[in-house]
Amino acid sequence: MTSLWVDRLKLPLTLIVVQVIFIILFASFIDYSDDASPAAITATTQNGNTTEPVDSGEEGPNSLHAYYGMFQDVHVMIFIGFGFLMMFLKRYGFSSVGLNMLIAALAIQWSTIVGGLVHNHGKSFTVSVTNMLTADFASAAVLITFGALLGKTSPLQMVIVTLVEIVIFAVNEYLGLEVFKAVDVGGSMFVHAFGAYFGLAVSRVLHREDVEKSNKEGSVYHSDMFAVIGSVFLWMFWPSFNSALAVEDAQHRAVLNTYFALAACCVATFAISSLVDKNSKFDMVHVQNATLAGGVAVGTSADMMIEPYGAVIIGALAGVLSVVGYKYITPFLSSKLKIHDTCGVNNLHGMPAIMAGITGAIVVAMADTDTYGVTLYRQFPAMAPPSGNDTDWSIMGLEPEPGKGRSAGQQAGYQIIALVVTIAIAIVSGLLLGVVLKFCPCLSQPAGESLFEDEPNWELPEVEGSITSD
Amino acid sequence: MTSLWVDRLKLPLTLIVVQVIFIILFASFIDYSDDASPAAITATTQNGNTTEPVDSGEEGPNSLHAYYGMFQDVHVMIFIGFGFLMMFLKRYGFSSVGLNMLIAALAIQWSTIVGGLVHNHGKSFTVSVTNMLTADFASAAVLITFGALLGKTSPLQMVIVTLVEIVIFAVNEYLGLEVFKAVDVGGSMFVHAFGAYFGLAVSRVLHREDVEKSNKEGSVYHSDMFAVIGSVFLWMFWPSFNSALAVEDAQHRAVLNTYFALAACCVATFAISSLVDKNSKFDMVHVQNATLAGGVAVGTSADMMIEPYGAVIIGALAGVLSVVGYKYITPFLSSKLKIHDTCGVNNLHGMPAIMAGITGAIVVAMADTDTYGVTLYRQFPAMAPPSGNDTDWSIMGLEPEPGKGRSAGQQAGYQIIALVVTIAIAIVSGLLLGVVLKFCPCLSQPAGESLFEDEPNWELPEVEGSITSD
Amino acid sequence: MTSLWVDRLKLPLTLIVVQVIFIILFASFIDYSDDASPAAITATTQNGNTTEPVDSGEEGPNSLHAYYGMFQDVHVMIFIGFGFLMMFLKRYGFSSVGLNMLIAALAIQWSTIVGGLVHNHGKSFTVSVTNMLTADFASAAVLITFGALLGKTSPLQMVIVTLVEIVIFAVNEYLGLEVFKAVDVGGSMFVHAFGAYFGLAVSRVLHREDVEKSNKEGSVYHSDMFAVIGSVFLWMFWPSFNSALAVEDAQHRAVLNTYFALAACCVATFAISSLVDKNSKFDMVHVQNATLAGGVAVGTSADMMIEPYGAVIIGALAGVLSVVGYKYITPFLSSKLKIHDTCGVNNLHGMPAIMAGITGAIVVAMADTDTYGVTLYRQFPAMAPPSGNDTDWSIMGLEPEPGKGRSAGQQAGYQIIALVVTIAIAIVSGLLLGVVLKFCPCLSQPAGESLFEDEPNWELPEVEGSITSD
Repeated sequence: MTSLWVDRLKLPLTLIVVQVIFIILFASFIDYSDDASPAAITATTQNGNTTEPVDSGEEGPNSLHAYYGMFQDVHVMIFIGFGFLMMFLKRYGFSSVGLNMLIAALAIQWSTIVGGLVHNHGKSFTVSVTNMLTADFASAAVLITFGALLGKTSPLQMVIVTLVEIVIFAVNEYLGLEVFKAVDVGGSMFVHAFGAYFGLAVSRVLHREDVEKSNKEGSVYHSDMFAVIGSVFLWMFWPSFNSALAVEDAQHRAVLNTYFALAACCVATFAISSLVDKNSKFDMVHVQNATLAGGVAVGTSADMMIEPYGAVIIGALAGVLSVVGYKYITPFLSSKLKIHDTCGVNNLHGMPAIMAGITGAIVVAMADTDTYGVTLYRQFPAMAPPSGNDTDWSIMGLEPEPGKGRSAGQQAGYQIIALVVTIAIAIVSGLLLGVVLKFCPCLSQPAGESLFEDEPNWELPEVEGSITSD
Repeated sequence: MTSLWVDRLKLPLTLIVVQVIFIILFASFIDYSDDASPAAITATTQNGNTTEPVDSGEEGPNSLHAYYGMFQDVHVMIFIGFGFLMMFLKRYGFSSVGLNMLIAALAIQWSTIVGGLVHNHGKSFTVSVTNMLTADFASAAVLITFGALLGKTSPLQMVIVTLVEIVIFAVNEYLGLEVFKAVDVGGSMFVHAFGAYFGLAVSRVLHREDVEKSNKEGSVYHSDMFAVIGSVFLWMFWPSFNSALAVEDAQHRAVLNTYFALAACCVATFAISSLVDKNSKFDMVHVQNATLAGGVAVGTSADMMIEPYGAVIIGALAGVLSVVGYKYITPFLSSKLKIHDTCGVNNLHGMPAIMAGITGAIVVAMADTDTYGVTLYRQFPAMAPPSGNDTDWSIMGLEPEPGKGRSAGQQAGYQIIALVVTIAIAIVSGLLLGVVLKFCPCLSQPAGESLFEDEPNWELPEVEGSITSD
Repeated sequence: MTSLWVDRLKLPLTLIVVQVIFIILFASFIDYSDDASPAAITATTQNGNTTEPVDSGEEGPNSLHAYYGMFQDVHVMIFIGFGFLMMFLKRYGFSSVGLNMLIAALAIQWSTIVGGLVHNHGKSFTVSVTNMLTADFASAAVLITFGALLGKTSPLQMVIVTLVEIVIFAVNEYLGLEVFKAVDVGGSMFVHAFGAYFGLAVSRVLHREDVEKSNKEGSVYHSDMFAVIGSVFLWMFWPSFNSALAVEDAQHRAVLNTYFALAACCVATFAISSLVDKNSKFDMVHVQNATLAGGVAVGTSADMMIEPYGAVIIGALAGVLSVVGYKYITPFLSSKLKIHDTCGVNNLHGMPAIMAGITGAIVVAMADTDTYGVTLYRQFPAMAPPSGNDTDWSIMGLEPEPGKGRSAGQQAGYQIIALVVTIAIAIVSGLLLGVVLKFCPCLSQPAGESLFEDEPNWELPEVEGSITSD
């Protein structure tokens, strides 16, 4: 009787405890950034600059205006994009969109805390609209992981995955950005590759024979329609994802490159989808997913000088790679390696992200001032001279931020290191977490009829047919 | 025979007459604002400042750029958010999204006229993008009312409700903002509380026994999927709703607070939804609605210095309150008080809005220059000294706009007065309108099989099953 | 056996060849605009202005910020708006949204190339966010054409239509804008009229008797729900479509006029839909489509001084016109003239666009400096004196860009010429293309059971009913 109560209450109580801890940590560590704080009277009096803070110009220099529009695009990608894309399963729609929302709401708060603490070395910190962006990016990684596990894990398991993955995500991202000084404007390595291989590692450990036998792992006509809503919103707003944290000409370039890459990827997806089909028909799974691979594949190099035709080539190849993945690699992983991948995140996120990392390294290896002019060290800060002195810059009377004096080749090497380390950390930590999830007796992993099924977790309304009967 | 023709034509003729009156009033009173008007030659010649008006800088100081992005977010909330959230009923989808659109299109035009006349004391006025924002806010109030009445009123009744409610809304808002000088950045009091209690009052008067017996008041799997589209768009864009009319640091803060409040509200909703369910399952009604309560509850204080943890606390408590409302209070209101609330607007809008008003008053009571610095009087204009003289400001050589010299406590008192008056006006006017709607013989209130049913008002396509048959 | 292989491969191979040609043309002709390119070291050294390019101000003067928000609204209209609006057919949902995406992805790349070459007279050119906007506009024309042909053409036929139509679109637009110097801020003439009459001309040639007999040309309850998603997104974001390329006060005015026109159009649509129905019920086809006609009808004059009441009148009349079109003209065209119009593009795009062109000409005929002040020549550049000298401007010390010295009446005449020429080119080229499509033996036009049916082109999931069965 006690255990039944515990069983009933473990999910809500876990969520309550977690949310209370979030509140305590928010109260302990987080304050508003200057841009979101009033100007103090004393402060402004002291520095004598008294008029500026009460200037009522609506545009102003507030960072909100620079980031909020693209933030909302990314926000739509997280909640509508991922949430609806996973609705393709015929009996798992409530869980797809509902758990997507729960996971992201947890991840947003938790990554605000963890990411802030990691980047500020455990000290109190402030938040602004850019923290909202990075929190949404972090939740994208967890939702990609969710895509690999969709229908095969309990809500409580996904809560654990979220809490653990966000920490490892933050550490890996810190390593990549701050230690290796790799660049990855669209997060292809740190978000997509990480989320995908973390999820596939967990999926490998949690593998069950009955997943293969389930007759519920598939779509119906209408569930595919809902899924395509998510897909199209991801497709449209991906330029914002890849450019939101870039600046000036680099941001403009990231938008253009992602836009063209996705258009080419879409055409390639339809072409190859028809080519590999025995009846030459299109497959909706490809259209929903592989059309997006171009956005991932161009993610690391989106703000670099890859030229519009380079973006189109990258996008088209990513579409080919992704369709081939869905058609041939996913079945192979499932049957031979026992890595079951519900949404095919290896094809949409994993392989295209590896392609992105390698492409990025190649493009970085060719970076020089002929191509990047005065923005070279803004794009690749670790290539700036350690002293901050540079002949070209001196001519112009400028002094770049001190860097690490890397050559383009060295920077390219660090890009590859960041990619390899990311995948390694994702796989190892994913495997370890999988073991915990599998052998912790209280987490109730779904099996048999409960796989790919809303019923165990949702009070379901009456069946569909009744809509037409009186 | 005559009466049959009248019966057939009363709805279209009413709409035509209303639209023609709108055109006459637009022609009589409304012009473009300066920001939307060309610079006249004579005017620019006279002041000698001839170059500025033809300056081709795309950014410029045009207010369109400051407001349009968030306006479109709010616009999506009104038409997709409300429209699809109400689609959960299994046989009322066309009416939900269709009448939502008709009501909002009427409300936008009518509130542009009425709001403009009220704020300009009956004189001609100009319109700009901010009028589009306030018109959308006003239509939100009517759509909340529609949520309480959904499936139980005829289109013609809803047209009457729209025309009447917009007038009372404008008067109450004028009272609250201009007379009581209350602040309510997200409209929790003047939009959400007003719309909810107006609607519940109408619903009380229109109560019919057969509503309780209808077997159509419920969802099916797919109708819940459509509803969640509306829910998620409301959830994502709520930070824009609460911050669109705020400025500078206060706007940034309103975005952050609403974002965090909604994330916490989402987690709390899932926790409590499972906790109160006899099978510990989630309820989609809660996920669709209670996750949004945090946006309402933080609406009045969103631009205040509540700190991020304050926002998280408010959001989490709102989620708890709203789920408890759906589980226990809605059935009680319906069975005991004969207040039937189709969408549960009391739980999503009403109670969270009361919470918002009270929270706002508490936060206002603590406002001082230590917390708000030089922005204190911008945030709470009625607290500025009537003379416009203030020691702190003088030190800085500044002079605030003359106010009413209220203490923080007094301002808090006026906040409560505005809340109470809003609810009182909403209930009294809603009851009166309900009596008119009930006893006017020509408005054809639905009954029996026509409740929660599209068929009386829409030419319906063939039944669903045919999609699968040849 | 060979022909079977050819038959199987003709679509994918066509797409692959087309995409490879796109890559070659991108590589040959397209570079980043200055706004998307790094500042070169030598260039900045030479002009001595060295600090500005590395200034890290996030807002800056980059054109991305001026256009990207509205671009994304337009992007949503193209992919969600058009894609989902066409989902109303009960068995053609995958094709509607899928082919919409394929066509737009082809059109975006192809019109970037063709439009750039036409406007730059065959020389290399650069691209920026404004090219993304014009590429999306061009794809809108093709998608309108797709609406006329929906369900009656094969994917390969639509690929051909896309490739041909984009070229003729670019030539006609160049003629209208650069030769006739007509103005058309929302593209009502060059996008909507062109796309609609091109499509209707193709449809006339491809006419088949069995289209009339198909029992699949209709909606079901749920397919109409999906369609209304597209409709509402088009409705909401139309102000962005009509104003994205306008500037300053004219842009603000275009937003206001379109917003009010659409609200009035929505009310008029509901009124007339009920009025013309034998049971006084609303028709979802009208709500999905005719509510949008106001956005088309105000498209040419949206940035002109039509006053808010003028916008409301235009919108309301467009709603009336469009509903009457759906009710009476579409059946007439189909049965008498053998012009079958699946989506009723004549009612949503064609006739309202003619109304837009005529309205625009009338408003232009009244243009003078009393109304437009110093912006007269910015609005109508061909009205500026050829010498660039103008008495009024001289007083202010200004000098307009040299124009063609047209009177308002002459400019109005050219507006009408542009409209007539657009429709003539659309019809003639559409008829010619139709003949090619009809008599080219390899394009496999659908017939009989394949009309309005996904099955020939998509691997379909299992039937819907299984969602409710165990």
